[in-house]
Amino acid sequence: MEEIKKLIEKLENLNYKDMYSNDFFLTWEKTDDELKAVFTIADILRKMRENNISSKIFDSGLAISLFRDNSTRTRFSFASACNLLGLEVQDLDEGKSQVAHGETVRETANMISFMADVIGIRDDMFIGKGNKYMHEVSDAVKQGNEDGILEQRPTLVNLQCDIDHPTQSMADMLHIIHEFGGIENLKGKKIAMTWAYSPSYGKPLSVPQGIVGLMTRMGMEVVLAHPEGYEIMPEVEEVAKKNAAESGGSFTKTNSMAEAFKDADIVYPKSWAPFAAMEKRTELYGKNDFDGIKALEKELLTQNANHKDWACTEEMMKLTKDGKALYMHCLPADITGVSCEAGEVDASVFDRYRTPLYKEASFKPYIIAAMMFLSKVKDPSKTLEELLKNKPQRFSGK
Amino acid sequence: MEEIKKLIEKLENLNYKDMYSNDFFLTWEKTDDELKAVFTIADILRKMRENNISSKIFDSGLAISLFRDNSTRTRFSFASACNLLGLEVQDLDEGKSQVAHGETVRETANMISFMADVIGIRDDMFIGKGNKYMHEVSDAVKQGNEDGILEQRPTLVNLQCDIDHPTQSMADMLHIIHEFGGIENLKGKKIAMTWAYSPSYGKPLSVPQGIVGLMTRMGMEVVLAHPEGYEIMPEVEEVAKKNAAESGGSFTKTNSMAEAFKDADIVYPKSWAPFAAMEKRTELYGKNDFDGIKALEKELLTQNANHKDWACTEEMMKLTKDGKALYMHCLPADITGVSCEAGEVDASVFDRYRTPLYKEASFKPYIIAAMMFLSKVKDPSKTLEELLKNKPQRFSGK
Amino acid sequence: MEEIKKLIEKLENLNYKDMYSNDFFLTWEKTDDELKAVFTIADILRKMRENNISSKIFDSGLAISLFRDNSTRTRFSFASACNLLGLEVQDLDEGKSQVAHGETVRETANMISFMADVIGIRDDMFIGKGNKYMHEVSDAVKQGNEDGILEQRPTLVNLQCDIDHPTQSMADMLHIIHEFGGIENLKGKKIAMTWAYSPSYGKPLSVPQGIVGLMTRMGMEVVLAHPEGYEIMPEVEEVAKKNAAESGGSFTKTNSMAEAFKDADIVYPKSWAPFAAMEKRTELYGKNDFDGIKALEKELLTQNANHKDWACTEEMMKLTKDGKALYMHCLPADITGVSCEAGEVDASVFDRYRTPLYKEASFKPYIIAAMMFLSKVKDPSKTLEELLKNKPQRFSGK
Repeated sequence: MEEIKKLIEKLENLNYKDMYSNDFFLTWEKTDDELKAVFTIADILRKMRENNISSKIFDSGLAISLFRDNSTRTRFSFASACNLLGLEVQDLDEGKSQVAHGETVRETANMISFMADVIGIRDDMFIGKGNKYMHEVSDAVKQGNEDGILEQRPTLVNLQCDIDHPTQSMADMLHIIHEFGGIENLKGKKIAMTWAYSPSYGKPLSVPQGIVGLMTRMGMEVVLAHPEGYEIMPEVEEVAKKNAAESGGSFTKTNSMAEAFKDADIVYPKSWAPFAAMEKRTELYGKNDFDGIKALEKELLTQNANHKDWACTEEMMKLTKDGKALYMHCLPADITGVSCEAGEVDASVFDRYRTPLYKEASFKPYIIAAMMFLSKVKDPSKTLEELLKNKPQRFSGK
Repeated sequence: MEEIKKLIEKLENLNYKDMYSNDFFLTWEKTDDELKAVFTIADILRKMRENNISSKIFDSGLAISLFRDNSTRTRFSFASACNLLGLEVQDLDEGKSQVAHGETVRETANMISFMADVIGIRDDMFIGKGNKYMHEVSDAVKQGNEDGILEQRPTLVNLQCDIDHPTQSMADMLHIIHEFGGIENLKGKKIAMTWAYSPSYGKPLSVPQGIVGLMTRMGMEVVLAHPEGYEIMPEVEEVAKKNAAESGGSFTKTNSMAEAFKDADIVYPKSWAPFAAMEKRTELYGKNDFDGIKALEKELLTQNANHKDWACTEEMMKLTKDGKALYMHCLPADITGVSCEAGEVDASVFDRYRTPLYKEASFKPYIIAAMMFLSKVKDPSKTLEELLKNKPQRFSGK
Repeated sequence: MEEIKKLIEKLENLNYKDMYSNDFFLTWEKTDDELKAVFTIADILRKMRENNISSKIFDSGLAISLFRDNSTRTRFSFASACNLLGLEVQDLDEGKSQVAHGETVRETANMISFMADVIGIRDDMFIGKGNKYMHEVSDAVKQGNEDGILEQRPTLVNLQCDIDHPTQSMADMLHIIHEFGGIENLKGKKIAMTWAYSPSYGKPLSVPQGIVGLMTRMGMEVVLAHPEGYEIMPEVEEVAKKNAAESGGSFTKTNSMAEAFKDADIVYPKSWAPFAAMEKRTELYGKNDFDGIKALEKELLTQNANHKDWACTEEMMKLTKDGKALYMHCLPADITGVSCEAGEVDASVFDRYRTPLYKEASFKPYIIAAMMFLSKVKDPSKTLEELLKNKPQRFSGK
């Protein structure tokens, strides 16, 4: 309990008032204080849950989920977060093909939001589309609230777009904070966000982009490594540079995995598709050019196969700080000899980090819940103090 | 709060005791007082929600939904209504093809209802089937309760059948009541329920039928307009005539859209399929005659195309009362130049009425909730007064 | 209320402490006291519900359901049980084909369980796989809890595996207990678990296995009857023999339906597939040998058709005790002349037992809830007494 109290006190020194009644799109649109508020509340909600204190602030209410891509993990994380706060998830299943635009989005967004407090969207498949679509939805329901159609303004959580994957990168950072004993200990730590070979071809860019766009905030030494041709969005690289300059860290790029791993405190080896190829694919989908898409897939798989040496092997791990860097991954990973013949990581490396990897993932529901909490609750400290005082039981059979 | 109190007082003068532990199939099976009770409770529930007073009268319990047709809007409205009262929705997905009958219905209805307080059914595709099926389900669970199998009698809400669409028409009327400042102001108002051209062929008849079957209740001048060959069910026309005679309004028919629009206070232009064609389609489906269905579809589309002039244009709107009739639609509309080349309504007309249209839709969850409230709660006034006195918070972070 | 109090008192004399924080796989892994505790709590929960006392012990929390086979009845029973206790169901839809193993199971199990209190699995299709898979999941989340990944240990309920169908057999027995006026009256009663003809070929073995594995516990005279070639798993026959010896009942086998029905107090005629054939099918699926599967299906249907005389006819029923044995079935049954030309049971027999059959099914949600209650609640008597004292209303509009 003392621990929770201290965390609430920490909140008092942060300025996060602009998060109230607001959306969460990209981490770099938020201030350091705002991100810290998310981490702090995530920790508080977790501790409350562990101490059987309910944080069900909604006695009823809906959370709309809109997934334009299959997703077990994100879906369960979102459902968990909503359940923790008392919201019931209602899925909108539009189908992948039926990508609505403009007035149709405005109409649908209002029609599904009469009782919605929160909307969670995952739309990461098409470059230049996902984030834009989220803004369309957000604008529509904001307007709907102003026009007296919606009794409340549903706030939006980006569950992965074409640019950023904030719930992933924030969960990752909270994991690092716990592993390194505090956010203040991240300064100067070297993290290698590197490409890795996978026999699958179109993994989203939002993970590496989210990582370099966030980890450069806290004074870390961020190295982005990939083979030539696997560039991420240039805009996000600019964000990373700017962040590094402001936070006193660094952002560098290399085409050598070994260089990136050298003395790294943390490694995050993961496959992704080249930005330019994803742009081309988006274009081909727009034209319904399925032959073109097939040809592109083949081309990308061939290109990937040239870089099978980009793997997180035991050899590679030896290059890291004391050979003991923290290995990270958003899961599921392509494990050599387990889920594929040759993949992102050696089975022995993966196995050694299994428990930390699962812990890393376990922060996501709390991160999502914290984002929703901050966007809905007017006075977070007060509400949390009340919960701590009244201690409503999450489960009364303990 | 004063407003809510006044609404509760209004309830006292209405006789709606037969709604308790009963179903809601067709509006014309209900008395005026019963319909007024639904409107009043819908308004109360909305005001409570707007004032952060929870109307969660179920601490647990299930609401079964059974949709024989895809439906985003109705599904979300039903889910919202259930969540508002504290019921969790459990979908029964039987598939369109597997239309069960007789003893199978009886068995399934009981098997899914052990904890069900409410059942919502949408079954509007086949003439002569939907409403009948709903009665089969209702009879089965009533019997199940009497036999001691079900601890409670789940009551049924018709979420659209082949005859009526009561949650739509009631939401529509509540919208009109609000627009015209009270149910007493509807007397003598002219409403044009007119057919309109759409490039799609099989839109359900239940909307126009629901509208003429309900709006004739309140002394309105109801005009039903459609091209020759687009007749609705004769039984429902009889209902409309009888209603008009009793309420001091009128029910007339015309084959001229312009005539219907002339001096209208409200216009409701919307496509539907001819009753006779829908009967034929039901027959063809019964025989699995898919070639016949295809031929019929083609025939209907050709027939529709003869009436492209049946559109709610700016020109048409000028004919209405001061050129400013309230434009209504159950959504989604076929908008000329937006969702199709030529459709039911001009883009500029639709756009001017966008906010009222969305408001119209926003009443549906409350109408559904009110219907369920009246069928489950023994003493609605008392329960509402208690809620108003205790003011349980819907959201404790406000 | 007095009745509920008496049932709680009954609990005091039972030793069921090992059920706490534990799974429910097979009935024969549980002691008599443990089974009696399930029955008693199922009765208590039902009586509480009937008296509008809420047994919602979870204010929030998830129950994960994982169904590897379509199932309306079990799905609704599980959903009902979860709702009764306050858990929200989240379905994991892995698809039938994607049968995960080993480390993948471990990962997925953890990823979906961050907020899960309970996991319900149905996996009955493949001999030698279902129960094993359940153990893999259980081991994974137990480990996850010990490693600090999961805040709680989600306990598992077997909703049907290849070996046993405990929620079915327990619901069946609770039905018998109620029909015969108490568990103490089952001693010496004769129950005929017999094969019956069905035009469908691959019905799971877990029902007959579950029945002979459970009913032999209570001193009943259990007869298992089937045509030659329709053997159940030999291991389960051994269990039945051992049970009978210990409980003072008997377990016999015969290839004559008439012999089994002779003077029976209870008959349970039901189709199932031969154990050896199911083993073969599992093998064929493992090799993706779809031609082989088709050939096997054909062979099995032909084999079935040799035994059309294995039907619960009026003639057969006359052989039973006073011609009035209790007819049981897990539903849906293949009814001669109703759901098929020739099936498991005569329409007139089925119809006469319709109400008891539905009642039989109605126990399942309470059995599942009782299993979850016993696995999650530390001091069941105390928690139930508190509920009975405070009487939280399930529905406040009564």
